[in-house]
Amino acid sequence: MLIVKKFGGSSVANVERIYNVAKRCIEDYKRGDNVVVVLSAMGKTTDGLIELANSVSKRPNRREMDMLLTTGEQVSVALMAMAMQELNVPAISLNAFQIGIHTTQVHTNSRIKEIDKARIRHELENRKIVIVAGFQGIDKYDDLTTLGRGGSDTTAVALAAALHADKCEIFTDVEGVYTADPRIVPDASKLKEISYDEMLEMATLGAKVLHNRSVELAKKYSVPLVVRSSLNMEEGTEVKEETRMEKMLVSGVAADKNTARISLIGLKDVPGVAFKVFNCLAKKNVNIDMILQSIGREGSKDITFTVPRDMLEDALEVLEENRDTLCFDRVSSKKSVAKVSVIGSGMATNPGVAAKMFEALFNAGINIKMISTSEIRVTVLIEEEETELAVRAIHEAFRLKDL
Amino acid sequence: MLIVKKFGGSSVANVERIYNVAKRCIEDYKRGDNVVVVLSAMGKTTDGLIELANSVSKRPNRREMDMLLTTGEQVSVALMAMAMQELNVPAISLNAFQIGIHTTQVHTNSRIKEIDKARIRHELENRKIVIVAGFQGIDKYDDLTTLGRGGSDTTAVALAAALHADKCEIFTDVEGVYTADPRIVPDASKLKEISYDEMLEMATLGAKVLHNRSVELAKKYSVPLVVRSSLNMEEGTEVKEETRMEKMLVSGVAADKNTARISLIGLKDVPGVAFKVFNCLAKKNVNIDMILQSIGREGSKDITFTVPRDMLEDALEVLEENRDTLCFDRVSSKKSVAKVSVIGSGMATNPGVAAKMFEALFNAGINIKMISTSEIRVTVLIEEEETELAVRAIHEAFRLKDL
Repeated sequence: MLIVKKFGGSSVANVERIYNVAKRCIEDYKRGDNVVVVLSAMGKTTDGLIELANSVSKRPNRREMDMLLTTGEQVSVALMAMAMQELNVPAISLNAFQIGIHTTQVHTNSRIKEIDKARIRHELENRKIVIVAGFQGIDKYDDLTTLGRGGSDTTAVALAAALHADKCEIFTDVEGVYTADPRIVPDASKLKEISYDEMLEMATLGAKVLHNRSVELAKKYSVPLVVRSSLNMEEGTEVKEETRMEKMLVSGVAADKNTARISLIGLKDVPGVAFKVFNCLAKKNVNIDMILQSIGREGSKDITFTVPRDMLEDALEVLEENRDTLCFDRVSSKKSVAKVSVIGSGMATNPGVAAKMFEALFNAGINIKMISTSEIRVTVLIEEEETELAVRAIHEAFRLKDL
Repeated sequence: MLIVKKFGGSSVANVERIYNVAKRCIEDYKRGDNVVVVLSAMGKTTDGLIELANSVSKRPNRREMDMLLTTGEQVSVALMAMAMQELNVPAISLNAFQIGIHTTQVHTNSRIKEIDKARIRHELENRKIVIVAGFQGIDKYDDLTTLGRGGSDTTAVALAAALHADKCEIFTDVEGVYTADPRIVPDASKLKEISYDEMLEMATLGAKVLHNRSVELAKKYSVPLVVRSSLNMEEGTEVKEETRMEKMLVSGVAADKNTARISLIGLKDVPGVAFKVFNCLAKKNVNIDMILQSIGREGSKDITFTVPRDMLEDALEVLEENRDTLCFDRVSSKKSVAKVSVIGSGMATNPGVAAKMFEALFNAGINIKMISTSEIRVTVLIEEEETELAVRAIHEAFRLKDL
């Protein structure tokens, strides 16, 4: 069996923890499995390097930023290899260029295009544990790139896909995927399994267990993913194809406070208005999430949408710059809003989920500002300070603690 | 003009110093020169990484050690590129694999075999300052290697040779090469120039300005080398082919305390004895320096030689292990000895240098234990505590302060 195991920065933050991870990997190895370990940089190393860069330059060049940041993972993997060797197990560390993790050229936010398999295969055939520097890649000029937030998860899943691994385990500081954030809902229950699609909605909507790019990749290549704790031996949550006969009506409630609302009031009611608005925002790399268009008064219309909170200023600036082209009366915005969603793959064939959610919110006295739905998700926009109340009310209404 | 400039760890130890180096390089660039900058790791970074490795493993694997240590230089070059860009000068950092600095496979002590020129040439043609991570290379498996002590000097000289640079400047915390260590001889004078051979003897004999491997390389490829201060604009010392009509009788006095003496007493006086002794030491990688063989009593002989001080224990161990094969009566050793040398390319054609040196030592009441000479050098072995006295006496006798 070939297993890819990914450990984050806090799991390798010091020598003691490095040894804990080493021992855990060696258990699989001694059972006869082939083991590939993907690591992040130790503890707060990456933050420290970013701080260093910012002390040198106000806007550090992105290529050089990648040159700088990739050292963090290289340190982790070298130390891990030393630790395993100290435990008398053959291990070898490899970085992105040694493996050949080929990415696009977008520095600080690259995407993996292809992974060469020869070197890793060779080391596995020699019965070595292969320790891979996560988060990094090389572009076609051999320049170093990084994969953006959650990049090491993506490395692990991409490697598992390329090597046709039997399992890809993502170790975190929680025991798996829960029906809601246990810090908000203490009696939230851990899911034994969840489908890729549900996980994707969860990840996108603020359940920070897995980064959505890694889930997308896992879905695309059907990588059997497991989210489990690096602190204990609990089984965790399997993320996989939907195989349950009776799909879960609702698998969980997710909340995301990293959001802000913008409304453009009094746009002309002619074709192409929405295109113009979102085109000029896209050019400035402002990500748009929920969009709602409504009829305004006297042949005008209003468009409301949400953006990540840290992009609010940028978005407002772009809109102001293009005021003449876009022709709106005024713009209003609100920074302190939050998205709360229920996710469940059984929702599509089971009406009434949205209604039940809205009822729960009404009973809790929470006002809904916007609504957006997908096949397996209902999302509402509410005031930020009502987030926890909303999550608890919905969790209760769907009886998720009994899952 | 193409200049290669090398700055050590203390020159890039913090953000302020990084900017000082950046500005210094930019001056050349703005004058129209092509500039390649070779950097070491910031300040005590390498020591910190070694400590980290030692906290993980008692004998860290050497391949993994190289994987770990090479991150230090990568951090320096990335930050330097950011600093130059902040000063509005195009710059790009490159590490060993991006350039193609090919080395032997001896981890932690590799030798450069070949350097690819395409990438650096390309960046220089685009009028960028190219910032190169010193000390590192890649072997034929794409594994990272390091060049051992003084490795960044070697990187700089090798690059200068490969690119046919017009000048290779090595910046240090001293102003150049002196007739003696100024901490021992306060009125030592700075040499305007010195030949490769003299510098090589100096470097080997403990003048820590340049590492001898880099001088060997500079000599082999006739790289015009300059040793100068990173703290001021003084001109420094040129290291080059011997072109002076009247060669210097004596260019300087060097001392080396990293030495220990071993004597094998009562070896058989038959052919092959010396071969056996030094062959078994060579197999254990013990470097031998001065060797002296003398007739012992009754058809036996004695062999005395010096080894680097930290290899004394290893050497004695090897000799004891091979006692039966080597057939000696007893072994004696002394840890606290030192080598003191006078170096000068005019010595070969000018008799009397050795005599004058011995006279100076006699007048100072210093006992000579061993003598060794080359074409341009006379070395004596003395008690360690007499080193400073000896250096001063010799410096005085040859009137080196008036050079």
